Amino acid sequence: MRVSVLFSGGKDSSLAAILLEPFFDIELVTCSFSLLPVGDIARETAERMGFAHRVVQLERSVLEKAYGMVITDGFPKNAINHIHSAAVEKLATEENVSFIADGIRRDDRVPVLDMSRIRSIEDKYDVHYVSPLKGYGRAAVNELVSRHLVIEEDQSDNIIKADYETELRELIRQRDGSEKINEVFPAHIQSHVIERKKVRPKRS
Amino acid sequence: MRVSVLFSGGKDSSLAAILLEPFFDIELVTCSFSLLPVGDIARETAERMGFAHRVVQLERSVLEKAYGMVITDGFPKNAINHIHSAAVEKLATEENVSFIADGIRRDDRVPVLDMSRIRSIEDKYDVHYVSPLKGYGRAAVNELVSRHLVIEEDQSDNIIKADYETELRELIRQRDGSEKINEVFPAHIQSHVIERKKVRPKRS
Repeated sequence: MRVSVLFSGGKDSSLAAILLEPFFDIELVTCSFSLLPVGDIARETAERMGFAHRVVQLERSVLEKAYGMVITDGFPKNAINHIHSAAVEKLATEENVSFIADGIRRDDRVPVLDMSRIRSIEDKYDVHYVSPLKGYGRAAVNELVSRHLVIEEDQSDNIIKADYETELRELIRQRDGSEKINEVFPAHIQSHVIERKKVRPKRS
Repeated sequence: MRVSVLFSGGKDSSLAAILLEPFFDIELVTCSFSLLPVGDIARETAERMGFAHRVVQLERSVLEKAYGMVITDGFPKNAINHIHSAAVEKLATEENVSFIADGIRRDDRVPVLDMSRIRSIEDKYDVHYVSPLKGYGRAAVNELVSRHLVIEEDQSDNIIKADYETELRELIRQRDGSEKINEVFPAHIQSHVIERKKVRPKRS
């Protein structure tokens, strides 16, 4: 059984893959609009962790719509959710994909898919969408991350990452300048995985 | 790292334990009011799966309050949630318990703890409450169950189980007769785990 895990190179999507690994064949998938080499950045992280990895191109129209949303709203929530939803649906249309996973945690407010959207994608494309961290709070996730991963954390503009935000920020920078980014994206801490810790398996 | 998994002998709590097993030392915990030998039934199932198991006695007052709720409401949701909440809190008060888990799925409506109750228990007792199946829909759970467990499923009154409902039904039977049970508990399918399938580990 294979699962395609939406992968940003951050701690949450990495931990999601680690929790699924004993039960599925893992492929990490990074979505890109080819505005920045986010696929390459994510591939390097995936390789260091020992996971298979591929890049999926999303339609430019998805990014354009997200751009319009964040500029209109003045905050990124709906824009990020729009890209996430498009990414899940893109994977769902692929013939060999039956399990799609992401790194959404219990306390996350964005990205998050609402239940009717999830059920609609699952039914339409006959796939399972799973969020292995959905039942874990922030502290529990951090506890598991500290056992399994070496990470760096910093303000979002200092961290090289391959999440949806990265290319959306870049588009805003190109069109409206760096100041606009700070206006619509609240400052927050991002993580990037450096490497995976060697954890002695509990049973051989 | 040890996790205490609230265990009914059904497929969901069993699968939750299986998903946690590569990352935690598992102990299954069955809560009982000693009205029926639910602890013994659960222990037998736990032993067949190869997990450590213990029984925790809950205060009779918890069952009495739940009884009052189901009789007043005419449906069991609030009563079951009350018992579940008491069970999580009981475990949280134990000195050596730091991770508490249950088998709640994405689509479950009962039992389910609301987020403020979860955070309150986590903060007050410095524990992590996790629901490994919270990000899995019914079909995804069934897919994983079919790979890992042999189960029997039947109407709730035909299945011997060790969930909160079992003893609550028994108390209603003793006080109000069997007819009353059917009045307040909608008929639904319950599962009981027969055994765990041998699954070849992905990596040794």
